[in-house]
Amino acid sequence: MAAIKAHGSLISTATNRVLVILYEKELEFEFVSVDMSTGEHKKDHFLSLNPFGQVPAFEDGDLKLFESRAITKYVAYEYASKGTQLIHQDSKKMAITLVWMEVEAQQYDPVASKLVWELGIKPMLGMVTDKAIVEENEAKLAKVLDVYENRLAHSKYLGGDCFTLADLHHLPTLQYLLGTQSQKLFDSRPHVSAWVADITARPAWLKVQALRKKH
Amino acid sequence: MAAIKAHGSLISTATNRVLVILYEKELEFEFVSVDMSTGEHKKDHFLSLNPFGQVPAFEDGDLKLFESRAITKYVAYEYASKGTQLIHQDSKKMAITLVWMEVEAQQYDPVASKLVWELGIKPMLGMVTDKAIVEENEAKLAKVLDVYENRLAHSKYLGGDCFTLADLHHLPTLQYLLGTQSQKLFDSRPHVSAWVADITARPAWLKVQALRKKH
Repeated sequence: MAAIKAHGSLISTATNRVLVILYEKELEFEFVSVDMSTGEHKKDHFLSLNPFGQVPAFEDGDLKLFESRAITKYVAYEYASKGTQLIHQDSKKMAITLVWMEVEAQQYDPVASKLVWELGIKPMLGMVTDKAIVEENEAKLAKVLDVYENRLAHSKYLGGDCFTLADLHHLPTLQYLLGTQSQKLFDSRPHVSAWVADITARPAWLKVQALRKKH
Repeated sequence: MAAIKAHGSLISTATNRVLVILYEKELEFEFVSVDMSTGEHKKDHFLSLNPFGQVPAFEDGDLKLFESRAITKYVAYEYASKGTQLIHQDSKKMAITLVWMEVEAQQYDPVASKLVWELGIKPMLGMVTDKAIVEENEAKLAKVLDVYENRLAHSKYLGGDCFTLADLHHLPTLQYLLGTQSQKLFDSRPHVSAWVADITARPAWLKVQALRKKH
């Protein structure tokens, strides 16, 4: 039995955020599928892992965690010596990475997640996309990506000169938006486009994609 | 000239989040007021500090940061030996604190910020409160606070047995909601209510309140 268990659903962006860091860190883990279609995430067993009834949840021995970005931070620090180094030891460099991690959570994700729902998940569930919400959020995402374009013109990755948590946190929503009409917002910005191509081609992320296809 | 500069507006919750940690850590700093009424935060000088044109921004010598929760994390780690200890050295304890920091950012703040805008800021600016938005977000906040009530029945603070960043990040939005109709949501939950009374009475937070009154 693996000490690390990742509970979640493969269609969930937050679950994919946890899976990709486990592959980046080359950690052994057990993926425990939570069947959201039957409301398993709202039942007592799962609520004991995450009282908000949302995927993912995470176990490392006796330690139980939830919230994907808390899990990735724990894993990055606890297993700092394994796999890809996703944080900086230098406190000033790490401070810059922290800024771009917050940018992902506060500026990019609220907008990107609405687009993922409208353009990625709803069609999958046979629901109708709300064009007004798409238009509003594409306009907001364009403004965020203008800032990214400028940042990435001066820095290979968002968090600095190497791939860090700041980039990794974007992968799941980014992947959903590629292949939808919103892809044009990334393609039309050369530095953003090169960054997207780089980070989505990482072996750890391809492993998450392979796991999704297998299930 | 102080090495640390906090740029922002005293009516901004995110600015207050930075001010309170500077007082908790007993650091000398200069508060640089940004006049949002004249759009100073959208002008070139400020955009060089924060490309999103939002308060706060922060300087520590040559280091320039933005995003309030990135600033607090930097300060908590960089000045770990000064003032109040707001993080845990133990990685498992810190992981739990990280979870509740993400809960603040992802579950509590999006809802609380909408209520702050409708019930705190709009009346201040002579704008009309949207009652439907208040009702919708009070219902959401009640559900979040049900989870907090259960957590605080078993733990004195959200992040563990002592005051940490997980609690501190709540202070600015919390303060705005006290004295509005939403206060009832906190008052009606005994453990939440005791926690609110405890953290809002901290000397560092009272100093932020005093600074607001002075300006």
